[in-house]
Amino acid sequence: MKTKTAKVIFQPSGRRGQVPLGVSIVEASRLLGVDIEAPCGTTQVCGKCKIRIEEGMFQKLGLESKQKHAGPWQAGEEKHISADEKKAGFRMGCVATVEGDLLIFVPEAARAGKQVVSKAPRYLDITLNPAVKQYHIQLEPPTLEDPIGNFERLCAALENCHHLKSLTMDLSVLRSLQNTLEAGEWQATVAVWMDREIILVQPGADTSIFGMAIDIGTTTVAAYLCDLISGEVIDTLSMMNPQVKYGEDVVSRISFHMENPDGLKRMSTDLVDGLNQLVGQALTKDYKRPAPEKGSESKQAFQIQPQEIVDVSIVGNTAMHHILLQLDPTPLGEIPFTPAVHHSLDLKARELGLKINPAAHIFMLPIEAGFVGGDNVGVILAEKPHHQDPIQLIIDIGTNGELVLGNKERLISSSCATGPALEGAQIEFGMRAAPGAIERVVIDPETLEVDYKVIGRDAWKTYSPPADMQAKGICGSGILDAVAQLFLADIVKKSGAFAKEQASNRYRIRPETGIKEFVLAWAKETSIGKDIVITQRDIRNIQLAKASIYTGCKLMMRKMGVDHVDSVKIAGAFGSHVDCKLALVMGMFPDCPMDKISSVGNAAGDGCRAALLDRDRRLEADRIARQVEYLELTLEEDFQRQLMEAIQFPHMTDIFEHLAGILPGKVLNTHSD
Amino acid sequence: MKTKTAKVIFQPSGRRGQVPLGVSIVEASRLLGVDIEAPCGTTQVCGKCKIRIEEGMFQKLGLESKQKHAGPWQAGEEKHISADEKKAGFRMGCVATVEGDLLIFVPEAARAGKQVVSKAPRYLDITLNPAVKQYHIQLEPPTLEDPIGNFERLCAALENCHHLKSLTMDLSVLRSLQNTLEAGEWQATVAVWMDREIILVQPGADTSIFGMAIDIGTTTVAAYLCDLISGEVIDTLSMMNPQVKYGEDVVSRISFHMENPDGLKRMSTDLVDGLNQLVGQALTKDYKRPAPEKGSESKQAFQIQPQEIVDVSIVGNTAMHHILLQLDPTPLGEIPFTPAVHHSLDLKARELGLKINPAAHIFMLPIEAGFVGGDNVGVILAEKPHHQDPIQLIIDIGTNGELVLGNKERLISSSCATGPALEGAQIEFGMRAAPGAIERVVIDPETLEVDYKVIGRDAWKTYSPPADMQAKGICGSGILDAVAQLFLADIVKKSGAFAKEQASNRYRIRPETGIKEFVLAWAKETSIGKDIVITQRDIRNIQLAKASIYTGCKLMMRKMGVDHVDSVKIAGAFGSHVDCKLALVMGMFPDCPMDKISSVGNAAGDGCRAALLDRDRRLEADRIARQVEYLELTLEEDFQRQLMEAIQFPHMTDIFEHLAGILPGKVLNTHSD
Repeated sequence: MKTKTAKVIFQPSGRRGQVPLGVSIVEASRLLGVDIEAPCGTTQVCGKCKIRIEEGMFQKLGLESKQKHAGPWQAGEEKHISADEKKAGFRMGCVATVEGDLLIFVPEAARAGKQVVSKAPRYLDITLNPAVKQYHIQLEPPTLEDPIGNFERLCAALENCHHLKSLTMDLSVLRSLQNTLEAGEWQATVAVWMDREIILVQPGADTSIFGMAIDIGTTTVAAYLCDLISGEVIDTLSMMNPQVKYGEDVVSRISFHMENPDGLKRMSTDLVDGLNQLVGQALTKDYKRPAPEKGSESKQAFQIQPQEIVDVSIVGNTAMHHILLQLDPTPLGEIPFTPAVHHSLDLKARELGLKINPAAHIFMLPIEAGFVGGDNVGVILAEKPHHQDPIQLIIDIGTNGELVLGNKERLISSSCATGPALEGAQIEFGMRAAPGAIERVVIDPETLEVDYKVIGRDAWKTYSPPADMQAKGICGSGILDAVAQLFLADIVKKSGAFAKEQASNRYRIRPETGIKEFVLAWAKETSIGKDIVITQRDIRNIQLAKASIYTGCKLMMRKMGVDHVDSVKIAGAFGSHVDCKLALVMGMFPDCPMDKISSVGNAAGDGCRAALLDRDRRLEADRIARQVEYLELTLEEDFQRQLMEAIQFPHMTDIFEHLAGILPGKVLNTHSD
Repeated sequence: MKTKTAKVIFQPSGRRGQVPLGVSIVEASRLLGVDIEAPCGTTQVCGKCKIRIEEGMFQKLGLESKQKHAGPWQAGEEKHISADEKKAGFRMGCVATVEGDLLIFVPEAARAGKQVVSKAPRYLDITLNPAVKQYHIQLEPPTLEDPIGNFERLCAALENCHHLKSLTMDLSVLRSLQNTLEAGEWQATVAVWMDREIILVQPGADTSIFGMAIDIGTTTVAAYLCDLISGEVIDTLSMMNPQVKYGEDVVSRISFHMENPDGLKRMSTDLVDGLNQLVGQALTKDYKRPAPEKGSESKQAFQIQPQEIVDVSIVGNTAMHHILLQLDPTPLGEIPFTPAVHHSLDLKARELGLKINPAAHIFMLPIEAGFVGGDNVGVILAEKPHHQDPIQLIIDIGTNGELVLGNKERLISSSCATGPALEGAQIEFGMRAAPGAIERVVIDPETLEVDYKVIGRDAWKTYSPPADMQAKGICGSGILDAVAQLFLADIVKKSGAFAKEQASNRYRIRPETGIKEFVLAWAKETSIGKDIVITQRDIRNIQLAKASIYTGCKLMMRKMGVDHVDSVKIAGAFGSHVDCKLALVMGMFPDCPMDKISSVGNAAGDGCRAALLDRDRRLEADRIARQVEYLELTLEEDFQRQLMEAIQFPHMTDIFEHLAGILPGKVLNTHSD
């Protein structure tokens, strides 16, 4: 029996596949391992499963055919979906059905498994010297003898008490100045940007100011909300980059702009809307701060007001930077890859429509070259290779990989298109690091039996009843584990191809398509009711990603004239999840002593935070950006040849040499360090 | 027979009176001497007579009662009035009728007699050194060897060729930079603000930039469109201040703000809309410029593009300044009269919603004190009393009078509420200086016969058939003439009261009200079909206006310790229309030799233009504003007594002494100098 199927793509996870016509969208999501919230059991009661039918990459679909492909609108949907939402393509996932190819966006609220965000902030060794500082003043109210205007009165006090001169004031502040001064009975606290511009006046003396350091990744956006008085991180917020629906990597986003007259504006607006949602989240939370008196146990609860967010720093690769600012990104994709601007920018938050203090500035970190943007400047600010003697190789693994090599003598950067495979996308059963994702895999070289661990469960499969595993898909670290283990178990050869002779019943070839695959988890161990497999194509995607990073490193080393590096740092969420040593074993980067390999977390975000909290780092950022030499890999004559050579896995002997100290046993999975 | 009547006020002219119920609004306008355009002869064909029923001062009227007072909506009106306009209160003046008290705004387009604007620019002795200058550059396109970004490429050229350093660029310019550079084949002309910020890049070398100097008066707004390359005035544009519908003087505008939560925003938005209309007028005109080659006769026609308007300077009294910027004007009306800010301000045009180059700045001239604002700073910039030895008295006569006295040693300014009487408003038959307005009056002291001249006709009444005169009302200069002549002919006594014994049949007392009046023009000489008179109240209003100016001058002189001034300058449109010597005779200002009295036109606008065209004047403006001492007249102990004393006319002997050199004959009307 052969059922008719349609292709369904879920965003932002990128999970895709054929599902039988007529199934509900919630069912389709389960078939493809994308759990949509449906606490009411699809009885059309809760409205949690609200999803949006997208245009995105299916530009040809008008609203009408979008509706057609999702089945007719049902009366029951009106209860949960407003007229405006309906117009925007929202449907209830338990009601709408798959009647043709569909691109579906699952809003954060409807996602059953929230992403595990690993962009937590690290301790940062900086001097607290933010661009925005606050000053307390006490004024004499105006009298007939001293009727000078409010602005001049304020400036005189700031000059007398705090030695600030030639200040200006944002019009929005001037508009409320009279009321504010009266409300505080002529006592006020003034926030001044760069000792130059008054951007906030608050009544009284007990006031707070906050800043946000925002790391805009191609796939993920992370924001660090910081107290500008203490320098502390109050909260870490994150979300998918809403632009993923227009394309998963920078090149496809640029294409979307080139093919759609309003594409740039849409992508920018969507991102700004997303940032405003992050801000909105922060504004609704109750935060705690230690009680001011010693011995007092209770913490003070506080909420943040939009006007208290007075500064923002932003890092992102060049494409993210340009698209956010609505700068034409077309030249970034064409020789000679010229950006609109390299230098850092100071913008007013209101120019981008960011709903924080309207007078606040946004500091955009500078761009190096090509796609290597403020994110890499942030990495350098955080890791400081330019202050040190040893030659560091820092690999920031995201959808767009950014590399930097060097020391205080010389720095070289480059960019490589790793694609989203290492983040679990474009992998048949790939998913983000969320509950249910297979994150660790071991294959016994003798029995070829598989053991694995899923996020959300402590026990490995071996120690669990199969039905308890509830595996849903594979995240980045699981994929890398799996591929390495397949290779170490000789199931996959050095070339990356499945071995011709296979002893395991987990290996099979799909009859219709000839696709070769290896089963990691049997259907009974999953929550999606089917076998979770790694396909030949998945392995190829991982090989391509690791080869592109390796080639980048090699060509940079050649340019610098070095044959080894003193240390390797893996930055980005990937590095936090995956054992960095495993990446070495796979040949993701050139040789380096095992103990000199480390994961440095979201270094780009850390550097962004440094720029938020220390204005001198902003000047340093511009110096770094112009100092780093850029290597455009695709222009290197032998780039393709090098890339092809790097696609193979390393010699087994090399691998075992590396593993000598830690073998034998489940060596590749004991990386909880 | 007694008809029922209702009170109708027409704005912006301020003409008001009782009209019979049931007449059309066009008829009412004719009865009150406010001609509304009705080229079709009120046959409901042309739609020119579109007027708006206002709330304005009749706040209590809702939309419903507004409609009720103007009669029911007629089907024919839909042809000319859109649904939006209907909602805003628009009606056709030939259809809507007077059924109750009404406040009616006559839009510029519907006004039959366009105002004669006398705010023409004078020659200005300045160094051309505008805040925005343009620089031509030729760039090498980027290559792989030199792939630096567009912004840095541009900056390098500007530094190499024009020694401009550390430039920033407005985001709006950065957004179109790539396209602009390509369009000009890497040749471009760059407009830079204050050697700091790039605000416009135009392709090629043949480009223009313009600026606007805007004088925002309480009643009239004048804008000078200037070529920033040549410094020439390209055009002078003017309009009523759209805020007049909220009140005729600064105090009533402030009251409107205090009584209406959104009053400030409405007044500001209306003014900005008005300024955008002025800009719109400039953009649709064809201007001419001399042909570039000698001998060529034809002038080059050109139009101005919005982005080419790259700079704006604005002057206005403190209330106009605050209301435009939406700064709370309440404290301006209360002791100690503290403004929000004294210092000049640099704003982005887009912050106010001005539809010119979005990156353009607006320079708001600084405020002195009280209501004395940037307009008086402009007057000082233009007349330069602070650079000279002789003590000058400069009187800027508008709805709000501003005075400045002094020389390079010391300057004192003050503000007096002259009211709009000297501009022809709040006078029973008062009107603006437009065709049909009586602008000159002579009364023969022997026969008491009246001769007069109307704007738009060369001949005086004496030399014309009565029906040819078509007088419609009296403008400012006509009122001043009439009052002076009534006094010189002894019809009005020194106190301002009509003499008890009257020989002329032109003098009469209205039976119902007891109002005393003197007929200037008989009904047969008018276009409004009734006698045009000067009432006792009109005379009182003029007396009050002149007394308030005189008192201001006297108190300033006392503060300075001088008993005479070396010269008197009359600024403002009033001074251009009226013989300044007559003002002296009337006792509008203290004694001064006749040949030292002059009219200096719109000096405030001239100073504004100076600030537009010479950036050094901007610094000077701030110095002046802080240097001038301010005298708050109402706080002087004997202000009321002084004012009361000044209400009388001067001794006849003093007057004749002044007139000695120019008497006898129609001496008071031979002031064509």
